[in-house]
Amino acid sequence: MESPLAALLWRSLRIYQVFGANTEPIPSDASVLARCREHASERARAGKGWLFMETAGGVHSPGPSGTTQADMYTPLRAPVVLIGDAKLGGISQTIASFEALRIRGYDVQSVMLFQDTTYQNYLYLADYFLQKYSIPVMSLQAPPERLQNEARDVEAMKEYYEQRTEENVVKTVLEHLDQSHTKRLARLDSMATKAHETIWYPFTQHEHLPAKDIMTIDSAHGDYFQTYNAQSPEDGGALRASFDGSASWWTQGLGHANPQLTMAAAYAAGRYGHVMFAGAIHEPAMALAETLLQGTGNSRLTRVFYSDNGSTGTEVAVKMGLRAARVRYGWGPHEKLGVLGLRGGYHGDTIGAMDCAEPCVYNENIEWYEGKGYWFDYPTILCKDGTWQVTAPAGLEEELGRPREYASLRHIFDVQGRERENQHRLYEEFIVGKLEALRAQGRKFGALIMEPIVLGAGGMAFVDPLFQRTLVQVIRRSPHLFTSEPGVRARTEASKQWSGLPILFDEVFTGLYRLGRFTPSTFLGVEPDVAVNAKLLTGGLVPLSTTMASEDVFDVFRSADKADALLHGHSYTAHPIGCQVGLESLAMMRKMEKRGAWDWAKRQGWVAAPPTPASRKTAAEDAEVWSVWPLDLVETLSRRAARVDGVWALGSVLAVHLRDEAGAGYSSTAALAVREALAKGEADGPNGPWNVHARVLGNVIYLMASQTTTREGVEKLSDLLVNSLQ
Amino acid sequence: MESPLAALLWRSLRIYQVFGANTEPIPSDASVLARCREHASERARAGKGWLFMETAGGVHSPGPSGTTQADMYTPLRAPVVLIGDAKLGGISQTIASFEALRIRGYDVQSVMLFQDTTYQNYLYLADYFLQKYSIPVMSLQAPPERLQNEARDVEAMKEYYEQRTEENVVKTVLEHLDQSHTKRLARLDSMATKAHETIWYPFTQHEHLPAKDIMTIDSAHGDYFQTYNAQSPEDGGALRASFDGSASWWTQGLGHANPQLTMAAAYAAGRYGHVMFAGAIHEPAMALAETLLQGTGNSRLTRVFYSDNGSTGTEVAVKMGLRAARVRYGWGPHEKLGVLGLRGGYHGDTIGAMDCAEPCVYNENIEWYEGKGYWFDYPTILCKDGTWQVTAPAGLEEELGRPREYASLRHIFDVQGRERENQHRLYEEFIVGKLEALRAQGRKFGALIMEPIVLGAGGMAFVDPLFQRTLVQVIRRSPHLFTSEPGVRARTEASKQWSGLPILFDEVFTGLYRLGRFTPSTFLGVEPDVAVNAKLLTGGLVPLSTTMASEDVFDVFRSADKADALLHGHSYTAHPIGCQVGLESLAMMRKMEKRGAWDWAKRQGWVAAPPTPASRKTAAEDAEVWSVWPLDLVETLSRRAARVDGVWALGSVLAVHLRDEAGAGYSSTAALAVREALAKGEADGPNGPWNVHARVLGNVIYLMASQTTTREGVEKLSDLLVNSLQ
Repeated sequence: MESPLAALLWRSLRIYQVFGANTEPIPSDASVLARCREHASERARAGKGWLFMETAGGVHSPGPSGTTQADMYTPLRAPVVLIGDAKLGGISQTIASFEALRIRGYDVQSVMLFQDTTYQNYLYLADYFLQKYSIPVMSLQAPPERLQNEARDVEAMKEYYEQRTEENVVKTVLEHLDQSHTKRLARLDSMATKAHETIWYPFTQHEHLPAKDIMTIDSAHGDYFQTYNAQSPEDGGALRASFDGSASWWTQGLGHANPQLTMAAAYAAGRYGHVMFAGAIHEPAMALAETLLQGTGNSRLTRVFYSDNGSTGTEVAVKMGLRAARVRYGWGPHEKLGVLGLRGGYHGDTIGAMDCAEPCVYNENIEWYEGKGYWFDYPTILCKDGTWQVTAPAGLEEELGRPREYASLRHIFDVQGRERENQHRLYEEFIVGKLEALRAQGRKFGALIMEPIVLGAGGMAFVDPLFQRTLVQVIRRSPHLFTSEPGVRARTEASKQWSGLPILFDEVFTGLYRLGRFTPSTFLGVEPDVAVNAKLLTGGLVPLSTTMASEDVFDVFRSADKADALLHGHSYTAHPIGCQVGLESLAMMRKMEKRGAWDWAKRQGWVAAPPTPASRKTAAEDAEVWSVWPLDLVETLSRRAARVDGVWALGSVLAVHLRDEAGAGYSSTAALAVREALAKGEADGPNGPWNVHARVLGNVIYLMASQTTTREGVEKLSDLLVNSLQ
Repeated sequence: MESPLAALLWRSLRIYQVFGANTEPIPSDASVLARCREHASERARAGKGWLFMETAGGVHSPGPSGTTQADMYTPLRAPVVLIGDAKLGGISQTIASFEALRIRGYDVQSVMLFQDTTYQNYLYLADYFLQKYSIPVMSLQAPPERLQNEARDVEAMKEYYEQRTEENVVKTVLEHLDQSHTKRLARLDSMATKAHETIWYPFTQHEHLPAKDIMTIDSAHGDYFQTYNAQSPEDGGALRASFDGSASWWTQGLGHANPQLTMAAAYAAGRYGHVMFAGAIHEPAMALAETLLQGTGNSRLTRVFYSDNGSTGTEVAVKMGLRAARVRYGWGPHEKLGVLGLRGGYHGDTIGAMDCAEPCVYNENIEWYEGKGYWFDYPTILCKDGTWQVTAPAGLEEELGRPREYASLRHIFDVQGRERENQHRLYEEFIVGKLEALRAQGRKFGALIMEPIVLGAGGMAFVDPLFQRTLVQVIRRSPHLFTSEPGVRARTEASKQWSGLPILFDEVFTGLYRLGRFTPSTFLGVEPDVAVNAKLLTGGLVPLSTTMASEDVFDVFRSADKADALLHGHSYTAHPIGCQVGLESLAMMRKMEKRGAWDWAKRQGWVAAPPTPASRKTAAEDAEVWSVWPLDLVETLSRRAARVDGVWALGSVLAVHLRDEAGAGYSSTAALAVREALAKGEADGPNGPWNVHARVLGNVIYLMASQTTTREGVEKLSDLLVNSLQ
């Protein structure tokens, strides 16, 4: 499903999907989902009642597109009545069919089957489903054998139905379904209030979060949440398709509830559960490490350290970097070391990761926070009034005079071409000047840590790649700027790899195809010594982080003394589920890249002629700069000069920087009106109500697609966004 | 399976499980697994070849115990040939059967079915399995209809078989299986070396980890890993059952690869994937929060904050505690605040969690570590030479003279009875004395953080619960010891709940039934203001942590200013898979508690008469102190005075403190010999080779069972442990 499709839930009309475990497959229609919804909607307008939608064939019988029906019907999220199989082998088939539904998030509310007196499947199944899932199994005496004499057959069947009516089995089933329906609605209705009383939300000022503003998510599929609409009338759908505009905090790459990722997770759970990871190896951790090292194409990186999230992965990176620098420069363990970074950088919320960010209103109130470093200003990119510009900060600005304009984003990203034109000289002078001043102050640094290309949480700042490239290059050739000890320059030059300071890239947000490439470091044309990944690493399913490092850095921790080791770890380090899902998710994205799955996006004004599969090179060699958001949309929005300061798009990210007279930044409220307009969405789309759940960063509103979003999905969203900015 | 059972893998003999999707169920035997293994072992001794073990019935046809066969055969871990179904509805049945196997960790290597010309299931399935799983589907022309004339039927079948032989289909299948077998062995054989070159291990001095010491885990089931034995001869099994003696870093509660947890994980994956958790609520997060708050029975706790692991959960707790104290006492944001804790406490490896631990050889080498607090000495419990004793540290020791002896562990845990005997007075004086001295030094503290009952990573120190109870009580009644500002006492007394300092319990290791109870705080009879859980929270499957807090603490962060909020969060905060698995896992353990599933353990000398289900009270009221490890085992081991200093057991933990002339602690090597003996295990058990994978903490060797370990399993382990300590 590419277009938003609201799931089926009405207050009065009770809707069920009836899956047979062994019924006959019949041909079906490509728009079957839309028609199901349309029909349900009509029926609900007609009044209360029941609607049972029987599927054709077994749970995994192919639908019209070839997708099996268990996968096809998931967006509708109707509760399920499963028709079990009373025949020989029917226990196995009924349970296997149930599981196929369950692992796709269906709520099977009842299992019904005939009472076969020979096999008595219903007795076993009644016990099985009650014990394991608290699901009642309803069984009916099987109908009589078909009689040759038609009149007598009709008579026999009539009698059969009368007996069943007396038994009240069907009534019992309906009552059970009715109770479940009422319970489901009541639970959805109460959750926001209960959450308001019970949950302590991340990053949230609860004083600003009334219960009514808490979004109740019933389920999610593809790029859309299915959210509960507490105000929906009796004859309106109670669930709404809501585009997950933040890609669930930038984690989603292959769509919510992707069945391939579910199967990967379940396979690892079934094979290992979790196994501890000190001095042990298992297949998913091994294969994922191999895939990552090979995928980055970074000749420096040889080691993979696993942890649980971007914040822990950053702490690991910083421990690596600081130690390497300290040993290289001969500093003592209690030397006060900082990191170099970029202003507005963000690396996570554990204290060590926080300490890598400069003090600001949002961290300096935290008791143990202590910003440890120096953070550079940097030039940023925006499309303003239809033109791509690089705006330099104070210090650099004076010399450039005014923003430099470029013919296209591609021209800005041609960092080697710009170097040939000496555009980096000014950057070099600026950086060297700062580093010399810091050395003069006696400050010591152990690493550079930065997010390549985009500083996400810092307000979707789109950094000039030439600046980041120059920063790395200056640091690497300037060990003398980090120590006054003579001879250290010789030592660092004799090193296998790193020089100056270890370069740590936080690719948690920008890595693994978020910006269109396996690693964003290829935009810069420089290789970090340590790289942190998370978010898209598991395709948006479970927490997992990797910190990759060079052998050079790794070797610093080797000694006869255990205390010299990197003494960091978590209980679920390299948990097989995360690794297996990571493996599957990277394999899927790499396959998409290879087969040119994003060529449609590249042709939206970004790239004249995407390479043919034959001419396609590796990601690292690919000079393409493109987005799933059309160039035309970026330019159109950038011309709304009254409200818009500038726009950029890259990979699956679109960021609109809004004008705010009161000033930009995190405290700005300029983007809230746009967010509200997006949240209104369409109350009456052909597939039911839908809207966009967007998150803002101060004066910036952004939309993030997944790597599986289609052109049709993007077009719908683009139209809504353009209208929201009228 | 309770006894260790090595999985089926021989170098020469190729062994396969053949699952039919639609074959006939036949009666089977209770010892079918052992017999499969025995037969395979005999066959392997007889030489090279093939062994196909055909199951009876479909994948989910019930085995003799009622467990379905897909679950029953998992410990054998034989690769699978799935016989597909060519009939009407067979696509659905074949895929559903495949998925039932896949989510249990089976490797299906081939699907075989007949070519039905009407339905052509084989065409669809060949494409499906190749595209999605790279699994080849082999199809054979169906045999001719059975003929009435027997001679002609035999002739027809003969002709049929001859044609098939010409087609070479079976040969192709065998070649494919052969290649997979060789590949599997080669991969297992290479993994330790590859891991040695590629993985950066947690907590590991790589100089001490040669490739040969890296354990290759093929899979895990129940309490056992299946590990690869690189030295196994041609006729010996290449996999070994290895008891997971550290419960995979203390995470396992319901056995590895528990199918109920797999289904829970897969259901959440299929329903949501992950959905972001700011200002939103979903069912698993809501229900888990409710279950936890209700389960603790702690009247103070009303709020649940989700994060990813014990370390992040601790950082959240500390941020909560420090802020609450700072606001209460009117300190500025840059006031230097410490925490109170216990010597040897450990709370995780992110910098903020590290800073809660006292400086020692294993953290003071970390660049940004800075121990922030004061850490108390404390009295510890051990069973020495058959007697339970409490040994006090210096300071307390002088007054007690010598270790105090008790009739039983239960007597030590009767903290209220001991208070009536004034045994806490000495503790009080000691604690007040220290706090007064610290105030005199001008030091300021914002929270008490400690692990109730057991300091795990700190060397399995078993703390006198009366000391921890007294510490909390002294702090709560002594706000004057934390500030010299007049009037603050009145302010703290007017508070709804916390007084003195917020009390934070790190229950990451000790919580959720690890020590036999939902929360270990009931042993102390005091309620913390903030409690951190992780590890067993997800039954040992995926990372997840909760930090529960009181409304009092929560309210401190409410204001009109966003910057006053608790600005902490992770991308996968409250990820539905973790929450759903947590929900399932807690439900399973609570059910076990209610139905008296651990009564057999209690009767092993710990509790005279476990309460009947009728007389059973809630966990919080339950005064039982027991372990799955028999009291007799503890006493026996404690009498090995030449090697053993003392022993304790509680819940599923058994810790043996060994004598070390060179001194106890993390650098001791005293436990290594015992670990080696356990690692030898039995080369020739009735179910194949098995051993114990134990981890040591300096001079301490511990074994940790899961909450589903049976008496039989414990007995086997006890015997091995006693022998290992000869």
